[in-house]
Amino acid sequence: MNLMILAHPKFDQSIANKTIVEALKESGVPLDIRNIHELYPDYQIDIKAEQENLLKYQNIILQYPFYWYSMPAILKHWIDEVFEYGFAYGNEGDKLKGKNLIPSFTVGSSKESYSALGFQHFRIYEYCKQLEQIAYYTQMHYIEPIYSYETSLAAGYSKKSIIKVAYQHAERIIHQLQLVDEMHLQEK
Amino acid sequence: MNLMILAHPKFDQSIANKTIVEALKESGVPLDIRNIHELYPDYQIDIKAEQENLLKYQNIILQYPFYWYSMPAILKHWIDEVFEYGFAYGNEGDKLKGKNLIPSFTVGSSKESYSALGFQHFRIYEYCKQLEQIAYYTQMHYIEPIYSYETSLAAGYSKKSIIKVAYQHAERIIHQLQLVDEMHLQEK
Repeated sequence: MNLMILAHPKFDQSIANKTIVEALKESGVPLDIRNIHELYPDYQIDIKAEQENLLKYQNIILQYPFYWYSMPAILKHWIDEVFEYGFAYGNEGDKLKGKNLIPSFTVGSSKESYSALGFQHFRIYEYCKQLEQIAYYTQMHYIEPIYSYETSLAAGYSKKSIIKVAYQHAERIIHQLQLVDEMHLQEK
Repeated sequence: MNLMILAHPKFDQSIANKTIVEALKESGVPLDIRNIHELYPDYQIDIKAEQENLLKYQNIILQYPFYWYSMPAILKHWIDEVFEYGFAYGNEGDKLKGKNLIPSFTVGSSKESYSALGFQHFRIYEYCKQLEQIAYYTQMHYIEPIYSYETSLAAGYSKKSIIKVAYQHAERIIHQLQLVDEMHLQEK
């Protein structure tokens, strides 16, 4: 029921995203993971395979590091290619309808930096309009993104503190999956 | 002095973007164009070559069709790869400082659709925060995007009306280049 589209061009070097994935695997939560950068290093996405795979899941987690205030290019490419007319929108394009879209990402710098007076100038939700509207246009339920600040070594945070943040992040994903599944059962 | 980073995965099939490029060429405005999807169909960007090329220009136009409320993946990938630490930001990362970043894109549907009560729900500028902050972070001047609505055949607009819109769009680019060059001369 739960699919993670994992989009990290340097997953092996990652601390936060790798820890989140490992914590989820350890937790026993049912989760299938597609590491799309590993699957498609040349960006030649198998559109049919991705579409058929999506049909099997109710909850679709997009897991990635925040790159230049949005998703890494491999994930944008996956959306550009897979969410096509007749599948995700347009005539008979209702194949994603009713699914839950759950963005989950790691942010390098601090919460304070993402404010009008901070050096990132805007708040995270202001950078998420695209995601929200992609959900609306494809008739998915937009679940508020799960994100964690201070996950970058380069930004000066320690490996130990990043791992701690990542474990908490994984807990929040598990909790969110429980909530959406409960909502889904109530709807039935 | 003027560089266009042209990012269109299906440029040959495009009407609006192709007309804009042709109109600019016909106009005689000095403009070098890099068609990055043609240069890098496998997304393996030559980072050094792109960085060295950027150094030569004052005005950098990003030209693309609006794909899922932002840029096509090839352009995001180009930014992810080329705007790296030590070049675009961070220690000695001031190579783009003072340049003008001029986003220029075509939007398929109508102005009315891009409003709270329209089916695209948000206004265009709400989808441009990333671009704006990329400019700030790299110390470039963020020039307000030039964009045109109703440029998609699939959205029901005629080839004739799209070409008309595209010519007007090209005029606006030329005008904007004049303005930023005048500003630049005044600063000197």
